[in-house]
Amino acid sequence: MGNGAKRIIIVGGVACGPKAAARARRVDPEAEIILVDRGTYPSYAGCGLPFYVAGAIKALDGLFSTAWGVNRDPAFFRNAKNVEVRMRTSAEAVDRARKEITLRNLETGETRVERYDKLVLATGASPVVPPIEGMNLKNVFTLRRPEDAEAIVKCIEGIDAEKAVIIGGGRISLEVVDALNAQAVDSTVVEMMDQLLPGAIDPEIAKILENAIVKAGVTVYTSEKVLRLEGGGDGGVKKVVTDKREIETDFVLAAVGVKPNVELARAAGLEITGLGTVAVDEYLRTSDPDIYAGGDCVSCDSLVTGEKIYAPLGSTANKHGRVIGTNVAGGAEKFPGVAAAGIMKTMGLNLARTGITRKEAAARGIDTVSALVPGQDKSHFYPGGKDITIELTAAAADGRVLGAQVIGPGDVARRADVVTAILTLRGTVDNLANMDLCYAPPFASAMDPLLHAANVIRNKMSGVAKGMTVEEFRAAGDEIVVVDVRSPAEHAKLPFEDARAVKAPLEELRGRLADLPRDKRAVVMCKVGTRGYECQRVLDGAGFVNSAFLEGGLQTLMETGE
Amino acid sequence: MGNGAKRIIIVGGVACGPKAAARARRVDPEAEIILVDRGTYPSYAGCGLPFYVAGAIKALDGLFSTAWGVNRDPAFFRNAKNVEVRMRTSAEAVDRARKEITLRNLETGETRVERYDKLVLATGASPVVPPIEGMNLKNVFTLRRPEDAEAIVKCIEGIDAEKAVIIGGGRISLEVVDALNAQAVDSTVVEMMDQLLPGAIDPEIAKILENAIVKAGVTVYTSEKVLRLEGGGDGGVKKVVTDKREIETDFVLAAVGVKPNVELARAAGLEITGLGTVAVDEYLRTSDPDIYAGGDCVSCDSLVTGEKIYAPLGSTANKHGRVIGTNVAGGAEKFPGVAAAGIMKTMGLNLARTGITRKEAAARGIDTVSALVPGQDKSHFYPGGKDITIELTAAAADGRVLGAQVIGPGDVARRADVVTAILTLRGTVDNLANMDLCYAPPFASAMDPLLHAANVIRNKMSGVAKGMTVEEFRAAGDEIVVVDVRSPAEHAKLPFEDARAVKAPLEELRGRLADLPRDKRAVVMCKVGTRGYECQRVLDGAGFVNSAFLEGGLQTLMETGE
Repeated sequence: MGNGAKRIIIVGGVACGPKAAARARRVDPEAEIILVDRGTYPSYAGCGLPFYVAGAIKALDGLFSTAWGVNRDPAFFRNAKNVEVRMRTSAEAVDRARKEITLRNLETGETRVERYDKLVLATGASPVVPPIEGMNLKNVFTLRRPEDAEAIVKCIEGIDAEKAVIIGGGRISLEVVDALNAQAVDSTVVEMMDQLLPGAIDPEIAKILENAIVKAGVTVYTSEKVLRLEGGGDGGVKKVVTDKREIETDFVLAAVGVKPNVELARAAGLEITGLGTVAVDEYLRTSDPDIYAGGDCVSCDSLVTGEKIYAPLGSTANKHGRVIGTNVAGGAEKFPGVAAAGIMKTMGLNLARTGITRKEAAARGIDTVSALVPGQDKSHFYPGGKDITIELTAAAADGRVLGAQVIGPGDVARRADVVTAILTLRGTVDNLANMDLCYAPPFASAMDPLLHAANVIRNKMSGVAKGMTVEEFRAAGDEIVVVDVRSPAEHAKLPFEDARAVKAPLEELRGRLADLPRDKRAVVMCKVGTRGYECQRVLDGAGFVNSAFLEGGLQTLMETGE
Repeated sequence: MGNGAKRIIIVGGVACGPKAAARARRVDPEAEIILVDRGTYPSYAGCGLPFYVAGAIKALDGLFSTAWGVNRDPAFFRNAKNVEVRMRTSAEAVDRARKEITLRNLETGETRVERYDKLVLATGASPVVPPIEGMNLKNVFTLRRPEDAEAIVKCIEGIDAEKAVIIGGGRISLEVVDALNAQAVDSTVVEMMDQLLPGAIDPEIAKILENAIVKAGVTVYTSEKVLRLEGGGDGGVKKVVTDKREIETDFVLAAVGVKPNVELARAAGLEITGLGTVAVDEYLRTSDPDIYAGGDCVSCDSLVTGEKIYAPLGSTANKHGRVIGTNVAGGAEKFPGVAAAGIMKTMGLNLARTGITRKEAAARGIDTVSALVPGQDKSHFYPGGKDITIELTAAAADGRVLGAQVIGPGDVARRADVVTAILTLRGTVDNLANMDLCYAPPFASAMDPLLHAANVIRNKMSGVAKGMTVEEFRAAGDEIVVVDVRSPAEHAKLPFEDARAVKAPLEELRGRLADLPRDKRAVVMCKVGTRGYECQRVLDGAGFVNSAFLEGGLQTLMETGE
């Protein structure tokens, strides 16, 4: 170390910390950079852990390696990056006045006080442990660190688990339950809120997801609270007691979210936000200008609402690391915020979401217009196309895109990423509707379902299209007549028996208008909604009052059914 | 027809025309709408034709059907949409003063004069027939209409073609050659310009594509002009004579582009652009306010340069149709322009492009900064990830994203579509670098190659990263030393033997600095460029002057090699 070199100490060695170290090194070849972490493994890919449990990733090694197959151990950091990594080292206290940090070697118990010029807190988050009795029983887990994943795999194999209960219906839960179900473990998900992925997706998408999971053989209980866990004679968990039932089990995973690790920051007198995260400005600088924080211990600005949100994610932590690395090395880069994009796969379904949900918008007093559009990820005439259902939401006032959710066995990531790009740049459904997305039959339709969704919203905003959601449809009684405009072949395949229904295929509707009752509200139903809208316009033209089309069609009605 | 109803006549029944008819009907339930077309099949999916030739689409029927399996024939249009479709009908002349159009029934020869309130020209384009001798020989084709595709399939089967020559190295050529190669037809592509897909992609991406095609067994000749075709005794083509050689063949497809069909518009005195297209304003209105035009007979504004470009595509034609349908029914919708996005697959590679190339930018006097980044479409530790190579280009002045090309067996569409969204909304590499794209190991890396490409450009713009392109590398002589920072395992797998090369794995480089010559320019080479950049920074820090890293690494050097 040269005498004039800057001394940068980084606390936390998973994603943000190592990235900050590597970036700082590239920007400032002179700086002394020290990274400390409590754990055993530095720089591991935490998001891969559920897939290790699933067996899709055969060994943990890959999670610790570079893309070119080199283990990211302390020797690697020293040799390749000239960064000193101290594992099994705890940051105990920060003396901001003296710009010193106390580090404890967890193996030897020895403490050292180190001077810093710039300090980075990348202290991450810890799993929330439900405050219930029995969490300390054997075969009860949370999943956060590689050690957890190894223990879970060993446990499931060791006890030859037949039954599992997953507490919480979030992303990690559903990734793990996918793994357990594939291993023929009889699995039950218990979620306290009234849907899976609460807060992340709208109810109809959650219902499509839940139905697919249940169809795959998993039991799902929503609006149900776990009260306690009970053990057997061997000290292992045997029973999960909820407010509604008792569930026998061999294994419990509690995945009810994470909480930011802010103890060090709080003790150092740094400002903490109302979300319980370390407060940072757009440069990711804390209330102390020589201390930066990023990754899972901070919150981010929502690109949609401008509000602070807590959306911890490995990709964001990496981006934070780069911004911090630049800034501790003397730069001035800003982190703009997040769309809160998320993606997962479970039970053969892919699910992506970005921006805000209708419910979140409503809670903020934003009037929205949504479209729910089932479609395919390739041209319908090209083999191998897979279903995707898109829910797109825009602001009623100006058509600004606010968020989207895409679910199905098909390519959901592409559509969600396009929406993320649009909401990052504050685009509207007008921008989206005419967007020149890639088109060739093996890759997309000439009018991708995403563009179609934008057009449905525009048609609703201009008053041309009048949708009825599946929820509204279910709540409706005899005041409506259901005009089923599907073809006879489609009826044969998927009958819709309802006393209120009248069959009038699209191709015959214009000749059948006289047969339709005019004293009831006509709701047109087709397979996915496209013909329904077209026929709603036919009825409008024929003077039917207040007609509507069933959004997402019979397919969505079935997929969201009880 | 009510007396007050508007009379809309649409010329052209493939993509734009039927879409305009359907949209006009939904907006105006009263209008009388007549659609005419010279052909036999209305509303077919022309972009599917190469895949019918390939056998991926087993029957042409699918190209004529709705997503719910109903044939889009005139009866369908009449019954479902109340649109009168007249096939085998030619529009002969437009009398704009009288607002009348003369239509000829091509079966009976009968002509009729029809009055219109609004006229839509969706007259499409025709394949350019190379002006060479022998194009009228048997077994010589262009591919534009379903009849062409059927004839090609019949011909290849009928003559049991062993050899084929494709004139032109564009998208349709490469889709068809993929089909022929899969059917063990010995195929040769002859392209007049110096690369495949000239104008659409930059040379290094074209070289990756060409090498893959050649590796698959296809012969590719670029910078070679076909002079004439010669036939045998049976009247069938036998030989293609170029300016460099003679090629024996049983079959010729000429796919050298399309030209807009503007004869009707020109004869009617409508303004024609310098590109030979029907001139339209942003409402897609021609120089006559009662006549609209869209689809392959018009040009579009480039969203990047603002200039008119001719980029005919089925998806654009559909969007045009909707805009025109709205406007002829009394609305006022604008079409914003295109990114000139395109995507194709051939020989197991996917290739997407959007915006402008470096060369196009240079021709317009725009200084650019590019990044060429090989990567994977999933996290490197998740199974099933596939390679993609991204070339991203931005304006040097302000980092505005100008275009991208993505090639590889992996998911190229997602990355190209995100770039299209960004350039539609005039975003920058700063916007892209921190964009919250979907992340989970089965779908992407924490830092997607696309984000990485944005960061490479930012690093170049700030002077931190100094790339050397593979072209520059090839042109370099003994004035450089190549610092190969790959691991011994990588050397063993893929040796790089070059007198100028020094081996110094990343992990050892800092200890080996004294061994490296300082009198030559150090160019760091790794597999894909990431470590190369990191090591270039190490060299910078050690006082090496003017060091650089090989962009895209050895992988790109190999993939673009002769």
